[in-house]
Amino acid sequence: MQFQVIRQDSQSQARAGLINTAHGQVPTPTFMPVGTHGAVRTLSQRELEEAGVKLLLCNTYHLWLRPGLEVIQKAGGLHRFIGWNHPILTDSGGYQIFSLARLNKISEEGTTFQSHLDGSHHLFTPEKVTEIQHAFGVDIIMPLDHCIAYPCTYGAAQEASALTTRWAERSLKRHQELSQEESVGSSPTLFGIIQGSVYTELRRASAQQSLALDFPGYAIGGLSVGEPKSSMYEVLQTVLSLLPVNKPRYLMGIGYPEDLVECVSLGLDMFDCVIPTRNGRNGMVFTSSGRMVLRNAQYAQDFSPIDPECQCYACQNYTRAYIRHLFQVEEILALRLASLHNVYFFLKMMEQMREAIRKDCFQKWREEFRNRFQKSHSVF
Amino acid sequence: MQFQVIRQDSQSQARAGLINTAHGQVPTPTFMPVGTHGAVRTLSQRELEEAGVKLLLCNTYHLWLRPGLEVIQKAGGLHRFIGWNHPILTDSGGYQIFSLARLNKISEEGTTFQSHLDGSHHLFTPEKVTEIQHAFGVDIIMPLDHCIAYPCTYGAAQEASALTTRWAERSLKRHQELSQEESVGSSPTLFGIIQGSVYTELRRASAQQSLALDFPGYAIGGLSVGEPKSSMYEVLQTVLSLLPVNKPRYLMGIGYPEDLVECVSLGLDMFDCVIPTRNGRNGMVFTSSGRMVLRNAQYAQDFSPIDPECQCYACQNYTRAYIRHLFQVEEILALRLASLHNVYFFLKMMEQMREAIRKDCFQKWREEFRNRFQKSHSVF
Repeated sequence: MQFQVIRQDSQSQARAGLINTAHGQVPTPTFMPVGTHGAVRTLSQRELEEAGVKLLLCNTYHLWLRPGLEVIQKAGGLHRFIGWNHPILTDSGGYQIFSLARLNKISEEGTTFQSHLDGSHHLFTPEKVTEIQHAFGVDIIMPLDHCIAYPCTYGAAQEASALTTRWAERSLKRHQELSQEESVGSSPTLFGIIQGSVYTELRRASAQQSLALDFPGYAIGGLSVGEPKSSMYEVLQTVLSLLPVNKPRYLMGIGYPEDLVECVSLGLDMFDCVIPTRNGRNGMVFTSSGRMVLRNAQYAQDFSPIDPECQCYACQNYTRAYIRHLFQVEEILALRLASLHNVYFFLKMMEQMREAIRKDCFQKWREEFRNRFQKSHSVF
Repeated sequence: MQFQVIRQDSQSQARAGLINTAHGQVPTPTFMPVGTHGAVRTLSQRELEEAGVKLLLCNTYHLWLRPGLEVIQKAGGLHRFIGWNHPILTDSGGYQIFSLARLNKISEEGTTFQSHLDGSHHLFTPEKVTEIQHAFGVDIIMPLDHCIAYPCTYGAAQEASALTTRWAERSLKRHQELSQEESVGSSPTLFGIIQGSVYTELRRASAQQSLALDFPGYAIGGLSVGEPKSSMYEVLQTVLSLLPVNKPRYLMGIGYPEDLVECVSLGLDMFDCVIPTRNGRNGMVFTSSGRMVLRNAQYAQDFSPIDPECQCYACQNYTRAYIRHLFQVEEILALRLASLHNVYFFLKMMEQMREAIRKDCFQKWREEFRNRFQKSHSVF
C-alpha cells in the first residue's frame, strides 16, 4: 500500500489523499461500508460499486467463524470468495470478541472466547489474527487489540492500552515474517491501532508507542462507545497532533454525517460504520437537507424521491410514498432501497469533501452542509 | 389489448403469440412473477427488467388494503406508483379473500370479509373489484370469482362456478360502462375466469358460459390447489378444447418448470406463480440440470455458479459456496440472488420455448428439457 496527501486544506487539517493497493486506488477521505459476513447487509456488490465504494470493510471474527478460513482459502482469498475485486480492509476481531463473544478472557497470550453461535471455544492471539488476515489475502489488516467498555477506570484503560501495544509488537513481527514468505506486492498492509479510552494521557502514550513501531497507517479505536462527544473530540485532537501527515488515519466505527464532516476537518482519512445500512433497514434515510424517517405517515402520499438531488437508483426510480409503502408491507425492497440510498449518500458526501478540499473550498462546503443538513434535525 | 398467434407448433398445441398493450408488448408464452404488494419479493424493478419480465402480476386484495386506492390514484396509477412502465395484470382478489381473509361470507351480491391485517370489514362486489382495477390503470384485469377449496362436492363446485358466471356478467357490464367513460386505448382488458374444480362437466359449462360473454382472453382458475396432477391435466384438456385459438389463455397460479413446459405444449399462453421467489427465499434454485438446495453442505466448497449456463447477475458474479454462506449467515443478499436467478431461469425457459415454437422444434426442446431437468430430480 502507498499513501500520498494530494492536497492539504488551508483553513483546517482536512486533506485529500490517495491510497494505492494491489486491488486498486482509494481516494481519501473515504468511507467503508461494513460487509460483516462478506456482504453489506441487503446490498449486492454491483450496488456498492455503483454507489462509488472503493474500500470495503469485512469482519475477521465473523468470517473466521463462518464460512471459516478453509473455504475462503480454497476460493482463492476473500476477494474471490465474495466477488469483490476492489480493496478490502479487515478488522482484527477484537471489537467483536469484546461485544459479541461469550466468556471472553484476556491474557498476555491473547483472548479466549466462546463463539456467539455455538459456544465453541477459541483462542485468538495477535499472531493468529495476523495469519488469518494474511490468509484472507486482503489489502489492509488490523492487529488484535484489547477493546474495553466505556466507562472504565484509568487503571483498566492503561492496562488494556499497554497490552494492545505489546500485542501490536507481536502482530508486526508475525506480519513481517509472513510478508517475507509472500510474493512481492501481494502482502497486506498492517495498521497500528491507538487505544486508551477517554484518557488523553493514555491516548498520547498509545500513539507514541504505536508510532515507535512505524506502521504505514494508524487507526484510532475505542471511540463512539458511549463516551460524550466532547471526550471523543478531545481524544482526536490529542492523537491527531502526534500522527505524521504522510500516513493514513483511520477512525474506527464512526459515524453520523455530521461527525464525518467534523472528523475530516480534523485530518482523518478513513471511516467505517454500520449507520447507513442499519439505519436504512430501520427506515431512516439521510438527505442533503437532513434525516427522514420514511415510515412516517407524512410520506404516505409524498410522490417525490427520498432526496431530489440524489442520483442513486432509489431516488431516480422510486418515491417516498412507494418506499414507505414497502416498509409498511415489510417488503425487503424497502430495506434495500433505504440502505442503497444511505450508502450512496455517505459515499457522495465523501466525494464532495474530497472535491472541496482539492478546490480549496472545504470550509465553504462545510458551512453549507451545516446549514442544510444539521439545522434540519427537527425532521426527526 | 390485442393478441395474435404468430406460430402454431405442428406437433403439439403449443403456440407462440404476441400480446399488445398500452404499456408494451408481451411475447407469449409468458411467465409473470408475482408482485403481491407492488414489488416482487426481494427484487427491484430493474432486476425484473434485466430478467426479461414483460408482464407483472399484482394483487388487488393486498394493494387495496395497503397502500389503498387513494394513494395509487394520487400517484397516477399503479404503474407510476410502483415505478414499472411495462404491462401489469391484476388479479381479482377472489383467491386472497378465500385464502387469507377472515370470516369471508359469499352472497349473491359479493363477498364480505375481514382484513387479515386489522380485522376491518369489507365488501367486494364484482362491480367494485372491476372499479378498483380500472382505477389502478393496469393493462389486464380479472373479474371477481368464487374460489373454493379442494376437495369439494360436485354441488358446491357447481354453485361456486355458477356464481362466478353471474359475477362475470356483472363485472363485464361494469367494465363496459367504465371503458366508455375512459379515453380510447387507456382501458384495461377484462379476462373471463373458468372455474368448476376437478369436475370436467362443470369446467365445460363454465367455459361455455364464459365464452358466451366473449371475453378477449380466458383464465383458468382453481387449479393447483391440492388436486392430483392427473385431475389438473384432465381439466386443462377439457377446457382448452373449447377455447378459441385467437385469444390468450392464462393458467393461474402454475407452476413448476416441468408443469410450465407441459402446459405450454397444451396451448396455454400465460402463467403466474410464486414458486421462483418463494422457493428462492428458501434456498432452492432451478437450473438447466435440475433443482438444487443451496443450503446443503455439499455446496460449502463448490466454487462454480448456480448454473454455469445461466447469464443472470447471480451466476455471472457469485459461486454456490458464497451464496450458501450468505444463507447460513442469514444475509438478505442470499434471498435476492436465489430469487433473481430463479426468476431469470423461468423467464429464460419461456423465451427458449417461444424460440423453439417459432423454429418449429418445440418437441425436440421439450425432450431435451425432460432429459436434463426432470431426470435429475434426485438432486433434491
